[in-house]
Amino acid sequence: MKDSLIDTLTEQNHTKIVFLILDGVGGLHLGDGTQTELETARTPNLDSLARRSSNGLIIPVAPGVTPGSGPAHFALFGYDPVEANIGRGVLEAAGIGFQLTDRDVAVRGNFATVDSQGRITDRRAGRISTEENKRICEKLRREINIDEVELFIEPVKEHRVLLVLRGDGLGGAVSDTDPQATSVQPLEPQAQDPASQKTAQIMKHFLDQVRKVLADEPQANMITLRGFAKHQPYPTMQERYGLRSLCIANYPMYRGVAFLVGMDIHPVTPDASSQLDALEKNFTNYDFHFVHLKSTDKAGEDGDFNAKVRAIEEIDGLLPRVTALQPDVLVVTGDHSTPSALRSHSWHPVPVLLYSKYSRLDEATRLTEKECLKGALGQFSSKDLMALALAHSLRLKKFGA
Amino acid sequence: MKDSLIDTLTEQNHTKIVFLILDGVGGLHLGDGTQTELETARTPNLDSLARRSSNGLIIPVAPGVTPGSGPAHFALFGYDPVEANIGRGVLEAAGIGFQLTDRDVAVRGNFATVDSQGRITDRRAGRISTEENKRICEKLRREINIDEVELFIEPVKEHRVLLVLRGDGLGGAVSDTDPQATSVQPLEPQAQDPASQKTAQIMKHFLDQVRKVLADEPQANMITLRGFAKHQPYPTMQERYGLRSLCIANYPMYRGVAFLVGMDIHPVTPDASSQLDALEKNFTNYDFHFVHLKSTDKAGEDGDFNAKVRAIEEIDGLLPRVTALQPDVLVVTGDHSTPSALRSHSWHPVPVLLYSKYSRLDEATRLTEKECLKGALGQFSSKDLMALALAHSLRLKKFGA
Repeated sequence: MKDSLIDTLTEQNHTKIVFLILDGVGGLHLGDGTQTELETARTPNLDSLARRSSNGLIIPVAPGVTPGSGPAHFALFGYDPVEANIGRGVLEAAGIGFQLTDRDVAVRGNFATVDSQGRITDRRAGRISTEENKRICEKLRREINIDEVELFIEPVKEHRVLLVLRGDGLGGAVSDTDPQATSVQPLEPQAQDPASQKTAQIMKHFLDQVRKVLADEPQANMITLRGFAKHQPYPTMQERYGLRSLCIANYPMYRGVAFLVGMDIHPVTPDASSQLDALEKNFTNYDFHFVHLKSTDKAGEDGDFNAKVRAIEEIDGLLPRVTALQPDVLVVTGDHSTPSALRSHSWHPVPVLLYSKYSRLDEATRLTEKECLKGALGQFSSKDLMALALAHSLRLKKFGA
Repeated sequence: MKDSLIDTLTEQNHTKIVFLILDGVGGLHLGDGTQTELETARTPNLDSLARRSSNGLIIPVAPGVTPGSGPAHFALFGYDPVEANIGRGVLEAAGIGFQLTDRDVAVRGNFATVDSQGRITDRRAGRISTEENKRICEKLRREINIDEVELFIEPVKEHRVLLVLRGDGLGGAVSDTDPQATSVQPLEPQAQDPASQKTAQIMKHFLDQVRKVLADEPQANMITLRGFAKHQPYPTMQERYGLRSLCIANYPMYRGVAFLVGMDIHPVTPDASSQLDALEKNFTNYDFHFVHLKSTDKAGEDGDFNAKVRAIEEIDGLLPRVTALQPDVLVVTGDHSTPSALRSHSWHPVPVLLYSKYSRLDEATRLTEKECLKGALGQFSSKDLMALALAHSLRLKKFGA
């Protein structure tokens, strides 16, 4: 990944930057309603902050593009989300803290249930427990026999598993075997370039063995694979911006991206309030804090408009604990929109506020989809947000004489 | 530098374009205030013009990037400010009208005072007078002996000096010798690529001689060097847009950039009012006039909010002399922001108005940071401003059939 102009301009100081990310916070009106979740919520603290901030809307990847959590977060951290896009496997590995080397290909697996004809009847194997997952992974480790390369079989949550092949000459361009449907057999892994033939060959051999070893399992009797990816190291936020960075996030995906860009990862905490405890405790030890709050996205994915409104209001109630720390730059936004009306991520731009002593004031009075249209920041690409945060913390030198 | 799409579309007519550039005009509120310098100023003439114009905000280089005057002006003239970024030396040469050839490497020098250990005690040699500077340059010309190449030693203003090496095989990638600090010795000039080794070698030899020749000077007894640059010719505004262009600016940097893009350079005038005399006198002789007014930036750099307000009001008072000429396109903007609150250039977008018969009207009622957010032009890259000016003067053909 090439150095950006920004990277060449960074300089050090003692300012503190906080990114408070409300996952999927951007929304839509529901049915005949006219107000979004953010507009419906009572948010006195966010309102007050918005009036002292520069406001705007961020476009996660490109107009019309609905981002996954991976690209959306890479963009927030100033990484080109298309260039940085990597297979699910690498993110999954990062999310569980599995340290990949540059000889590794990682892939995300799902335990599934197949019938006697090998056709998938349950793509998630009845969402087996994580304990059950661990037992089955142990079994596979004992019985599977691959000798050309080293193979790691790592249980993740519930039905999810991470596979890592470590060896020479392994390409990552291999097609998914998950057909994303039931009543059909899993697909064969296919190499999509010559450099990945060895990987595909080994995985075929692996899946043949899995079928036999798990034949007597009642639920998890097969594995489907998605997101083969060869590991490529990323330049870290320390290298790019000189920021010592801490990730305070409780879900593997966000911890994973943060890990890949070199942040320290705070241990998982029980809830949002404990995430703020962690922020308070570590505030002086880092230059940059990434606080990821999940409840807004969850409610949006459930299509539960009211729950999303409540989630926003709860976070608003916690905001004074963040502002009390007096960060030099405080950004509040989301990685993407998750409108309850769509029950999924969407392409809609996301309201953003950037508070600092040097934020140009505007006429936006709230952090909402409509108000932010009046904002000084306009609508811009998520990947430029980090440059603005660095500028407002006076961490960027002048360009040219 | 590659031709842009715009360059291929230009055609000639008899329209007149005026760029009235209020250096550093973009601002910020100060302390507990909420109004910027532009918002505070009484500007009846600009207000009236804004209501008849398309308004917007320009981003000089990229979001978050604070530009130097060089890149900021290249962008105003439609040149990519990153691609066009050049060493201080070339700009300095252009600023004093020193015509560089393609065998030249130029570097900006500062006379400095060093103690008996060679450590810098004053990086500007007590800001010696320009007369004193000229005397010392004469002395150096007489006594310094370099035979591999031709060496020019040109006094600039106060403690500033321009050095030009002319010869074959001279690269421009040489590190600065100015340590940007006192109590330390100047650095050695280091070649940063093989093609620049000869340049570095000659400059070392030169600096050894300077140390001896100036040993008995009370103030200017050393030179530090910054911004080595090999001259590369730019395509001119005449070549790119077919515009016969005049620069009416009183400071070397702006005259320098204008010279590099092929403008004719009006002699220095005593004040802003005389700059408008020059505009009036030359109005019919050119297609494009660049009028650069410095007072706004100066006040901003001094952190003097009220002086910047007054500077804006004074310029507003001169505006009727410009509109009386009835230019077909009149652009009023800044090269960058210089908020009094920051006492320096900043990254904040700059209000812009574009008046012409064909400007789409909008709801912005003033040329201010907030009002321009409502403008028809939106927020856009400075380097696209020239294309808009050409379009509004009907100097661009249709693209495609």
